[in-house]
Amino acid sequence: MPHSRRDLLAGLAVTGAAYAFGEALRGTPPLSLAVGDDVADNTLRINSARLQESLEDLSVFGRPAGGTFADGVSRVAYSDADVAGRKYAMQRMHDAGLDPRIDAAGNITAGRPGSGPSLKPILFGSHIDSVPSGGNFDGDFGSMSAIEVMHTLNDHHVTTRHPLRIYIWQNEEGALVGSQIAAGVDVDLRRPFNGLTTAEGIRKIGGDPANLTQAHIQKGSFECYLELHIEQGGNLEHAGIPIGVVEGIVAIDEYEVEIRGFANHAGTTPMPERRNALLAAAMLIETVQRVVTSEPGRQVGTVGRLAVYPNAPNVVPGRVVHTIELRDLSAEKIARLGAEIQKQAQQIAAQTHTEISMKQVANDPPAMASPAIQKQIEIAASGLDLKTMRLPSGAGHDAQMMATLGPMGMIFVPSVGGISHSPKELTRWADCANGANVLLQTVLNIDRT
Amino acid sequence: MPHSRRDLLAGLAVTGAAYAFGEALRGTPPLSLAVGDDVADNTLRINSARLQESLEDLSVFGRPAGGTFADGVSRVAYSDADVAGRKYAMQRMHDAGLDPRIDAAGNITAGRPGSGPSLKPILFGSHIDSVPSGGNFDGDFGSMSAIEVMHTLNDHHVTTRHPLRIYIWQNEEGALVGSQIAAGVDVDLRRPFNGLTTAEGIRKIGGDPANLTQAHIQKGSFECYLELHIEQGGNLEHAGIPIGVVEGIVAIDEYEVEIRGFANHAGTTPMPERRNALLAAAMLIETVQRVVTSEPGRQVGTVGRLAVYPNAPNVVPGRVVHTIELRDLSAEKIARLGAEIQKQAQQIAAQTHTEISMKQVANDPPAMASPAIQKQIEIAASGLDLKTMRLPSGAGHDAQMMATLGPMGMIFVPSVGGISHSPKELTRWADCANGANVLLQTVLNIDRT
Repeated sequence: MPHSRRDLLAGLAVTGAAYAFGEALRGTPPLSLAVGDDVADNTLRINSARLQESLEDLSVFGRPAGGTFADGVSRVAYSDADVAGRKYAMQRMHDAGLDPRIDAAGNITAGRPGSGPSLKPILFGSHIDSVPSGGNFDGDFGSMSAIEVMHTLNDHHVTTRHPLRIYIWQNEEGALVGSQIAAGVDVDLRRPFNGLTTAEGIRKIGGDPANLTQAHIQKGSFECYLELHIEQGGNLEHAGIPIGVVEGIVAIDEYEVEIRGFANHAGTTPMPERRNALLAAAMLIETVQRVVTSEPGRQVGTVGRLAVYPNAPNVVPGRVVHTIELRDLSAEKIARLGAEIQKQAQQIAAQTHTEISMKQVANDPPAMASPAIQKQIEIAASGLDLKTMRLPSGAGHDAQMMATLGPMGMIFVPSVGGISHSPKELTRWADCANGANVLLQTVLNIDRT
Repeated sequence: MPHSRRDLLAGLAVTGAAYAFGEALRGTPPLSLAVGDDVADNTLRINSARLQESLEDLSVFGRPAGGTFADGVSRVAYSDADVAGRKYAMQRMHDAGLDPRIDAAGNITAGRPGSGPSLKPILFGSHIDSVPSGGNFDGDFGSMSAIEVMHTLNDHHVTTRHPLRIYIWQNEEGALVGSQIAAGVDVDLRRPFNGLTTAEGIRKIGGDPANLTQAHIQKGSFECYLELHIEQGGNLEHAGIPIGVVEGIVAIDEYEVEIRGFANHAGTTPMPERRNALLAAAMLIETVQRVVTSEPGRQVGTVGRLAVYPNAPNVVPGRVVHTIELRDLSAEKIARLGAEIQKQAQQIAAQTHTEISMKQVANDPPAMASPAIQKQIEIAASGLDLKTMRLPSGAGHDAQMMATLGPMGMIFVPSVGGISHSPKELTRWADCANGANVLLQTVLNIDRT
């Protein structure tokens, strides 16, 4: 939903002065919020040229041979490109005045002390691994922006009250491995990924799979976790709004569907006698579309993977296996949609003389963003004269693991054409700078309160 | 259609005596047709126990380890099982008093002289190669029955007027290779099949790929070609009719369809913004079903092979490639159905914001059976007190290549459950015996006329 003043201020313990200031801000250059001692902090801006340079420099690690920035990147976790990119990121952290280390899980982390040593750290970060043939913004943008925020604070000799800490999580794209370990999830170290076991991958990037508990982050041990990310969808671009305030990361229900008909000769089996598993699958794919779009909301449903057996032009398909994935912030809603699809699947089975089994194989709960942090992001954006809208994250992020340990917030910036996981993934440099400035100001806002 | 007396006699140059005989036949044991000198011929019957034995013996070559006859066979052309099965078939031909040889194409053939040396030979046969995990009747039945017919004639010292010749064609399942070569088609000898090139395969089974013209059969050089085969469909079984008289082998139009949408994140791409290639494919699969069943007739349409890209549960499919295969005796009808599907595909493309290209990749004309031979088969069946029905062959057969060279006829027997290309393929022994007797009597009928 578009941001309104009522949304901005509701539920925040603001002073009358701050309210008046909020009014005064509209259309004028940012001024001090006059909260705490750091009166100059809300005029701080990141160095947008340096942020762009860091993203361009990082893009060479995993770039297709002979390509340019526009050709995207394949920096799959545990690849040589991943190792090289991580080395580059650590160099940028050194340049920003930080002292990065690799934890036992293989995550890169670096802290910055605060003036109030008893205060819990504010964490922020993202990842730099990519999908095969991915883009230069998914993860990279949040990671380089996190470093840029630290660099900016150092440039201006700003001391925060809370300690700050960056995390660059390892293997986000291969199912949030680094942040799962940090959150205490018992990941399968034998799971193959990109030609290695996860244990081998962790060793390759400098972690220590035998001592993963050292990488655990204790529940309640941090003030909050923030992640800046590209939207990976088209909502912000369509609405013409530069900053998205994430309400939460959607719940995901995944089903494995098996349709059993009877494989028979495509030339000799009359149409009425067929038990065509692919015809049943076609009807079910349309049913998923119809059920998911039958009520208002942002819920999505996808049949993304499908296999036909025996898969020959001259054989009536006897068996089809496919996925159904449903996502929404409301776990209840997708459970209800799944049940409706299940019901209609049985009608299709009866109609096509097939058997359809639909088995739930994943049931990820939603990860809600902290309402207080959503407000802080909105205040920060407002202070930069940037409009915001609240929206769910349809994609998974490391932030969802951190949400199991403490308050979480995410900031989105527009993706051109809503494209991601593609070399065509693009966020304009001005939007990158806006996002990084909102991250900076959100950190400072939270540090003050 | 079910056989009627009007159909049986229409267009046949029968004498009044023959007509009266036809009347007398109903419900009585078969008698001499009193045509020509071989008055005893129409009481000849094949040895059904020997036919069964030959099929059971042949079934061991390519049988799954530890299996039985009911477990089917994998006797793929050019395999060791194929070589062994062919050796067995040649042994059976020797036992039947024949002198088989392997022609340059790798087909097994054996002749039997006739009393009228200026008469053209009557050819009959089938194949003994199978699909992977196939059954023990497709091809085997026609081949062993052809040998049994020769054996029966030798048992009874019957001399036909026409010379007779058996063909056991090589690699029928891999696109009629042996009969294509016999018909003068320039087959691609480099084409890989079952781990060998076709040339290597032909050499392995005893042919001579350097001299394929020696295997050519000249157009008009034979009286007719007959093939006995299992129906591979359920029409005869459903109608309770033991003998099918094939009207022709259907025309096949095959299309390759490519649907181009846009692959995007399944979590972040709102439903209305998707260009989902699999949703378009689902609609097209249902369209094929609807268009093909929209008018009366035996036409069939199948989407049998389909591939999704990138084929991941969490990615909206960006591209789908699939086949459409249409079959009917009328080439005009399937061309018209194809054009209608093409038209509706473009509407689906507009509706789903995808692009759909539908390219014709095969256009096999129908191969019509000779009407005179169809009548001869009906007379032979009637002489055995067996009901017949005419039907198209939805499957391709070597007979379609022979139809390009001279008159062709095919005899079908029921397949239990209409199943073929499966270990479950089954034709009852009584039906096998009936079919072989109809082949024998058809050969004798044609020999007399």
